[in-house]
Amino acid sequence: MLRNWYLSCVLAAMAAGSALAQTGTGFKLYNPAIATFPVVGGREWHTGLASFFDRLPQRISDSLRRPVWDLSHNSAGEYIDFTTDATTIDVSYKVTHKTILANLTTIAANGVDLYLQDVSGVWYWIQGAWAFSSDTIHFRYDHIQRPGAVKRFRLYLPLYSSPEWLNIGVPSVNSFSFVPVDIRQRPIVIYGTSILQGASASRPGLAWSNMLGRHLSLPIINLGFSGNGQLEVPVTGLIATIEASAYILDCLPNLYDAEKFSDTEVNRRITLAVAMLRRAHPATPIVLTEHADGLSSITLDSTYRAKYKRVNTILDSTFTALVRQGYKRLYLLTAKQIGFTDNSTIDGTHPGDIGMAAYAKAYEKLLKAILRH
Amino acid sequence: MLRNWYLSCVLAAMAAGSALAQTGTGFKLYNPAIATFPVVGGREWHTGLASFFDRLPQRISDSLRRPVWDLSHNSAGEYIDFTTDATTIDVSYKVTHKTILANLTTIAANGVDLYLQDVSGVWYWIQGAWAFSSDTIHFRYDHIQRPGAVKRFRLYLPLYSSPEWLNIGVPSVNSFSFVPVDIRQRPIVIYGTSILQGASASRPGLAWSNMLGRHLSLPIINLGFSGNGQLEVPVTGLIATIEASAYILDCLPNLYDAEKFSDTEVNRRITLAVAMLRRAHPATPIVLTEHADGLSSITLDSTYRAKYKRVNTILDSTFTALVRQGYKRLYLLTAKQIGFTDNSTIDGTHPGDIGMAAYAKAYEKLLKAILRH
Repeated sequence: MLRNWYLSCVLAAMAAGSALAQTGTGFKLYNPAIATFPVVGGREWHTGLASFFDRLPQRISDSLRRPVWDLSHNSAGEYIDFTTDATTIDVSYKVTHKTILANLTTIAANGVDLYLQDVSGVWYWIQGAWAFSSDTIHFRYDHIQRPGAVKRFRLYLPLYSSPEWLNIGVPSVNSFSFVPVDIRQRPIVIYGTSILQGASASRPGLAWSNMLGRHLSLPIINLGFSGNGQLEVPVTGLIATIEASAYILDCLPNLYDAEKFSDTEVNRRITLAVAMLRRAHPATPIVLTEHADGLSSITLDSTYRAKYKRVNTILDSTFTALVRQGYKRLYLLTAKQIGFTDNSTIDGTHPGDIGMAAYAKAYEKLLKAILRH
Repeated sequence: MLRNWYLSCVLAAMAAGSALAQTGTGFKLYNPAIATFPVVGGREWHTGLASFFDRLPQRISDSLRRPVWDLSHNSAGEYIDFTTDATTIDVSYKVTHKTILANLTTIAANGVDLYLQDVSGVWYWIQGAWAFSSDTIHFRYDHIQRPGAVKRFRLYLPLYSSPEWLNIGVPSVNSFSFVPVDIRQRPIVIYGTSILQGASASRPGLAWSNMLGRHLSLPIINLGFSGNGQLEVPVTGLIATIEASAYILDCLPNLYDAEKFSDTEVNRRITLAVAMLRRAHPATPIVLTEHADGLSSITLDSTYRAKYKRVNTILDSTFTALVRQGYKRLYLLTAKQIGFTDNSTIDGTHPGDIGMAAYAKAYEKLLKAILRH
């Protein structure tokens, strides 16, 4: 029975955790918060943070709407790279609040997810056994079989909760080193909504921005704010301070409500965001993305489809106008290119794993073409 | 913010529910339990049940291990077909216990899922707004846009919980009829595990047996028992009483533990199950399925892979022996044919939507070839 299976995993992992906590021997714990160099990938700011795993610097907090600031504590898109010769890894951490949502698994919202990259660049996923029942969450990875020489492990952090602290434990006989964030590589910076934050991938590694980062072997800065990716000036202004490979504005899913965001307002927000980024970065590609759910093929609910199509129509005309005004290196990713079907979403809005894979693939194709130039 | 969006859906649906409950006007409720003909599809037995939505008849309860009997109350694979000219449908129901699992969404475990089939046979998904917060769960479908003439609606029931009662509400001005279960069509009968019960599809309609039923336009009997699909004689004996198009035995994921199920025991259970079915049905196809997770490409956890591969090796040799003994119309579905990748599962065992789609597709291909003869 799944419940029993789960329970036995819980107990096994708990036992491992207890042994570790009680004896302090056998395993050695490595805490990214006391590393002497930046080790949290997937974000731009490593100092001046209100809390260690925050995605935005504290200095900007007063200029943000409260929900944006609150969501910036969620570790969506963040990961920790490390090397070790261990075949057992025990990750323990605490989140400020375990997020429970009907359309998201606990593993996606509050769990971590481990991958390994070999020296040739190929990524491999590693399954874990989890324990969510106590304040300290455990993910235990056992019997890891190396596919050959290993470049690094990558531990993705929770998509919808905020770690207070986190330790990576390996047997004390084994080596362990954090891999510093490569600040020479220009990231792809994405400003988006719940879909970017990761709803509703089944686990963190399958959120589309995390898949994209693996596929492109480029750092991705995930600025997805569930319900609150609204192309606001303070956020765009902050993004404009980042030296990026490309900027992606994927906020239409949070601008679909015509009562709050009129046609004029949606046009204004897109135009202003593009102008701000272009002023600071004359030649960096900017991608504008349609609402992926604006396709009739997804569901027969006509009202939401009409709302989603409205913002896509505004984006298309705004894009055309901007190109006519002389903007260069401006790109449009359409809902049709993303290509959702009726299997792609859990609720008509949030992609499950099928939608996430399609989303990542569409971006990969476009960005490979863009970055080749 | 997703939480707010969720809350507003909850409140909207709750409001709808309250209006309905308070006034009793506006909407008329249709209760499948008082229909004068069988209306719960996806199961074989419609009378002699301990509870209306049970998958197994009460008379067999004493012969089953308790967990199998308990899980038979879960409505996995069940659906209710109906016709209506309404564009709003409000489904309300109560489950005995809301199941919460880290690797399954609440929507998959406890939710319902609505599709529509047009007269040409094409299926369309319909998104709903949900409310899980009170004892009575609501799913509300609004603004349904018909793609043309409609053959039927299909409401899939929860995968991992047991409905006590359920009502389908439509505006009282609209028509409504339950569609009787077509008992002339021989179903495909599947005996399986948590994967068949639906873990970890994001919603009920994406469980592989439900996808397969839509793709083949055939009734499927889902006898998936999470952790307890163990090729046991009482269950196989019951299955042998069903006049089927094909039998599928997909139980290896619950026989992988060598301490409980030795090589000899796994061989014995497979051989006995096939013999029982073949004795009762000399010419009906029987499919034996490998553990889909027995592929190294899924994860680097070597221990579980070895366990999963062990049962596949036993199945393969048992299958070869049975064919040599003269068994006809016996088919093998291999893990390689199902084709999981490292994106296919949430935890190394349970397929997410990507794995579910691959699973359904592999069965569809095999069964179309088998049933053509």
